[in-house]
Amino acid sequence: METTLSSATKTVIIGGGRPTVIIGERINPTGKKRLAAALQAGDLTLVREEAVAQMAAGADVIDVNVGAAGVDDVILLPKAVRTVMEAVDAPVSIDSPNSDALKAALEVYQGKPLINSVNGEERSLESILPLVKEHGAAVIGLTMDENGIPDDPSRRLEIAKRIVARAEELGIPRREVIIDCLALTVGADSKAASVTLEAIRLVKQELGVNMTLGASNVSFGLPNREALNSAFIAMAIAAGATCPIVDPAKARQAILASDLLLGRDDFAVRYIKYYRQQQKT
Amino acid sequence: METTLSSATKTVIIGGGRPTVIIGERINPTGKKRLAAALQAGDLTLVREEAVAQMAAGADVIDVNVGAAGVDDVILLPKAVRTVMEAVDAPVSIDSPNSDALKAALEVYQGKPLINSVNGEERSLESILPLVKEHGAAVIGLTMDENGIPDDPSRRLEIAKRIVARAEELGIPRREVIIDCLALTVGADSKAASVTLEAIRLVKQELGVNMTLGASNVSFGLPNREALNSAFIAMAIAAGATCPIVDPAKARQAILASDLLLGRDDFAVRYIKYYRQQQKT
Repeated sequence: METTLSSATKTVIIGGGRPTVIIGERINPTGKKRLAAALQAGDLTLVREEAVAQMAAGADVIDVNVGAAGVDDVILLPKAVRTVMEAVDAPVSIDSPNSDALKAALEVYQGKPLINSVNGEERSLESILPLVKEHGAAVIGLTMDENGIPDDPSRRLEIAKRIVARAEELGIPRREVIIDCLALTVGADSKAASVTLEAIRLVKQELGVNMTLGASNVSFGLPNREALNSAFIAMAIAAGATCPIVDPAKARQAILASDLLLGRDDFAVRYIKYYRQQQKT
Repeated sequence: METTLSSATKTVIIGGGRPTVIIGERINPTGKKRLAAALQAGDLTLVREEAVAQMAAGADVIDVNVGAAGVDDVILLPKAVRTVMEAVDAPVSIDSPNSDALKAALEVYQGKPLINSVNGEERSLESILPLVKEHGAAVIGLTMDENGIPDDPSRRLEIAKRIVARAEELGIPRREVIIDCLALTVGADSKAASVTLEAIRLVKQELGVNMTLGASNVSFGLPNREALNSAFIAMAIAAGATCPIVDPAKARQAILASDLLLGRDDFAVRYIKYYRQQQKT
């Protein structure tokens, strides 16, 4: 199944056996004091810089989240989205839990964006899916609801099915829903990653949709995070994740290796090109 | 399913949801000029050093292969196996295509070894399996036969089934057969790794046996081999490989990360212990 995103000048296609699409995660103030302070001051210089740097590091889509204490994201999210559109030609993932902020940002966006995100809660389905329909966007569906994030992979699948069914009822094709089976840290629960991987396999098998994942969550609180993140990215892509949300500077090598191993990089062209670029820097 | 190996003083159990068992690959002169020259001179100093170094790096089982031009392995293999038994307490994987050399080495071995290997060829089945039976050993079964290594995962499964069936006819329990679905380089064929991974999934599902893999073959001829090997190890362990043959100094981090992600390392005890050891060195 293929999901198409676009900017004013560029189209990105996710899925259909193509190489993994990288959604750059870095424009998000969670855990980033300097970015949070800049956003609180209304300064979008760092947003622009992070957009450009992530493209250089291999991002295909740029996620934009400006949610920090004291930020009015109805005002700031559209400004940040415009800043990213001016700086780079990648499609944008517009990231907010606030439907008013999403609405304001969707009104300035040129192209077909990704909306990040809807979840299985009734009020989320009711407020976000109509925006997806109205703007002809794609949307990330998180496998959580009023009762939180289920421990049971088959219950994550049930939420994914509910989101897809509700989207289809509104006339949003299934291909526009990108499911996120939610990575939690194995530092807190040693079954956390295996539950997510099993949910990915089930969603692939039952729904066949594209899937994203905030892969680096898996190592939160643990040392040597990149080794864990790399192994998890490889497992998640092999299981069916097609467009993880990651820091491209850290995750690209594991993603290119995974694509090569899964037969999505004939003659290792992309892998070897990346290696040569790294040798030069 | 569990496979037990032992030395005179130590038992290693493979499978049953336990952490991945590392078979150290380095005592093998293929591509190692210095080791080949030492073996040709009958000098086993390097064999001893590699056994000790691999144990320090996290090996659980030591593979011993002395096959080099001009070496009489009927004479040298038992000597090398004895050298390893004296140097370390790990069980040994006795590695030769020559049944006379295997026989000579089995006669000196103390404990329950792994025999590396039998394959689906009639003459291999006929010469190796009786040795497995006679010595109460476990054996690695390679998914290849008279026609070479099949491109089709289901044909690799067929060979695995044939090896298991022939073993069972001789009274060798299925748990004593460790299947190797054979990793070939993606540098030559971009489908090579995905065929192997699919074969691993099929063998796990249909036979449920333990599985090994010479994981580093996957990157032969390509740059930045460790990134590919690490991603492949993660995918292979997630698919069902339980005792890969690797260089422990290079592969252990990816294996420990994979075990933690698959719920085989409660409280991340092994992963954090490894990290602390690395910090000290």
